[in-house]
Amino acid sequence: MAVITLTTDLGHKDFYQAALKGSLLTQLSDANIVDITHEIPAFNIPRAAFVLGNAYHYFPKGTVHIIGINTLFHEESRYIGMKYNDHYFVGADNGIFSLLLNGNEPQELYELNLMQDLRYLHFPLADILSKSACHIAKGGKLKDVGTPMQQLIEKMTLQPIFDKDMIRGNVIYVDAFGNAITNISKDLFNKVQKGRHFVLYFKRNETITNLSWHYNEVGEGEKLCLFGISNYLEIAINKGNASQLLGLHDDDSNVIRIEFKDSVL
Amino acid sequence: MAVITLTTDLGHKDFYQAALKGSLLTQLSDANIVDITHEIPAFNIPRAAFVLGNAYHYFPKGTVHIIGINTLFHEESRYIGMKYNDHYFVGADNGIFSLLLNGNEPQELYELNLMQDLRYLHFPLADILSKSACHIAKGGKLKDVGTPMQQLIEKMTLQPIFDKDMIRGNVIYVDAFGNAITNISKDLFNKVQKGRHFVLYFKRNETITNLSWHYNEVGEGEKLCLFGISNYLEIAINKGNASQLLGLHDDDSNVIRIEFKDSVL
Amino acid sequence: MAVITLTTDLGHKDFYQAALKGSLLTQLSDANIVDITHEIPAFNIPRAAFVLGNAYHYFPKGTVHIIGINTLFHEESRYIGMKYNDHYFVGADNGIFSLLLNGNEPQELYELNLMQDLRYLHFPLADILSKSACHIAKGGKLKDVGTPMQQLIEKMTLQPIFDKDMIRGNVIYVDAFGNAITNISKDLFNKVQKGRHFVLYFKRNETITNLSWHYNEVGEGEKLCLFGISNYLEIAINKGNASQLLGLHDDDSNVIRIEFKDSVL
Repeated sequence: MAVITLTTDLGHKDFYQAALKGSLLTQLSDANIVDITHEIPAFNIPRAAFVLGNAYHYFPKGTVHIIGINTLFHEESRYIGMKYNDHYFVGADNGIFSLLLNGNEPQELYELNLMQDLRYLHFPLADILSKSACHIAKGGKLKDVGTPMQQLIEKMTLQPIFDKDMIRGNVIYVDAFGNAITNISKDLFNKVQKGRHFVLYFKRNETITNLSWHYNEVGEGEKLCLFGISNYLEIAINKGNASQLLGLHDDDSNVIRIEFKDSVL
Repeated sequence: MAVITLTTDLGHKDFYQAALKGSLLTQLSDANIVDITHEIPAFNIPRAAFVLGNAYHYFPKGTVHIIGINTLFHEESRYIGMKYNDHYFVGADNGIFSLLLNGNEPQELYELNLMQDLRYLHFPLADILSKSACHIAKGGKLKDVGTPMQQLIEKMTLQPIFDKDMIRGNVIYVDAFGNAITNISKDLFNKVQKGRHFVLYFKRNETITNLSWHYNEVGEGEKLCLFGISNYLEIAINKGNASQLLGLHDDDSNVIRIEFKDSVL
Repeated sequence: MAVITLTTDLGHKDFYQAALKGSLLTQLSDANIVDITHEIPAFNIPRAAFVLGNAYHYFPKGTVHIIGINTLFHEESRYIGMKYNDHYFVGADNGIFSLLLNGNEPQELYELNLMQDLRYLHFPLADILSKSACHIAKGGKLKDVGTPMQQLIEKMTLQPIFDKDMIRGNVIYVDAFGNAITNISKDLFNKVQKGRHFVLYFKRNETITNLSWHYNEVGEGEKLCLFGISNYLEIAINKGNASQLLGLHDDDSNVIRIEFKDSVL
């Protein structure tokens, strides 16, 4: 049974996500529809990229991921079907595909073209994207519903800066537990650290000098940093809400600085 | 695989919606259960009618829709199974069926009668409604679980009033994006407009004179009106929350007036 | 098709519950995954026990229930697979199994042992618990993935105290409708009541002297008590939020006292 996932900002109280599911089931009655989330803040493309980018690889190869964010038609609208890491993604060309690719090359990239007059499409999610997703989920090919394309709309997110002894990054996501997830990846950290000691500085006077493996390696209520499920550096409090207690929010004001030295600083 | 949808005010934090799903799966192990929403405000029948009424027709013909709102037993309780537009609906006779029909005739209308003493039924949703839904989803007929009936409990909602040059309506629903949806249908609008110019007046001093097709036809942050997915007139702000920014809530105080004239007013 | 349910504190906005579902579908593509809830307050084991304990028995025998709360690895971590009442439960040994058993004996109790180095497991839910759940859902046996064990970690919840004429209990759960559910079971109530009259005292000056069968047996806005779907005594208001209106919250301050007498008090 084909798996189709949904990542949208439609919420749960309105009829929109249900209409989308209904339209999928009308076309493919045994579709296995799984919500990644419908709680992306309205129009927040980087957030959708973060959540879907961290979730999709847990699903079976060949899963079709519908991205239901900023899908409204306008004059320059294009709808995309992409194959990447043996997963399929359909959505509007609003920058999210470039964020998911993060500099990598897709296996296939098509502009969806279902011979419709898009101008009169009120609900592209339940129409062109739903049709394309079902086509792929049934075993169809992207090339049968699209035209090859090259250039995606690019969207940039805040990137950490670094030199041989320092990384400076930002909090980019706060999860439901209050863990403050930064844009500093494990790969970048390891590359700069080279096994050395470090001091992580954040807010005005806070520091952390140890990397934990689990949230519960420090006492309850104590702060720590670790690479979580997302493989990005998180600042957390064991059994506590780090975002609230340490004032760490996902805005540009929260600069995280890590300094590396051979000896303990 | 039979599709069964759920529209309730049970929320997601308690065990109630799970108990309902469990009781469905115990009777029909391959039921494909889809949440329309469990976030109807407690006991709000018109809201449930609006959400389900706008969602159900996206689902495959023959889908069974369980309405889990105000289903408690009382002396005059009746539970209903209805076929309408080739979809099935089961719920309590509390006015919601008349709202869904909106003046139209059902194909079939039965009082559910599963030979139980309803007085001792604590959770009709997981019992009589769940049994009836599974009976239909298995291909059974309404007449095997009910008695034909004629007269539903009527529930009225605020209707727009209009003459040949004017429509006056109300905001009846605010969606998660803050779009303010009125009770003025596209059919009514077209019938009165007859291709003429119009001015839509709302709040004290606000006016809109163009009908948009998409939310993004005006600049970001600008107000507009359009017929959305629901086919009712919406007042919206491109990429903004119209309800908050314009003070449009779903209560009786928000009167919308549209005046039509041959020339620009 | 095997049913696997999820009870977690992961919420819906992050990618965590989706990652868990993806990992299940990757192992067992036709798993029928049902959310009991993802809205358990963070780390709240008694709450998870209450919700799952009231929901699980509605599901088909043989259902596998994944408990995703406090599953992080620490030095003394053990992961458990339990068969009880012909249902299967997998989770961390953090007290929740003792709460679910509530003094009863399980049919089978195993420490899960999938020959992994647990220390490096970042997301046990999507790994050891997910693998064990799929093993059982495929028809495998607990003994093939675990070692028999005897002694669970015990966790106690507040218990009512009683003598032959009195029961004193507490509000332990407030549902989405504001019904205040106590820890006084129907069995205990019946055992002490022996058909006599009673007065239920709560807050400073409130009393209730009748047991209702349905929420709507008193006028709208009036208080009542009844045994709800959970089979525990609830204090409620017909069509109103008892928790808010009567100040009944699930903390230790809300003592409920019931006095029984042969004649009307």
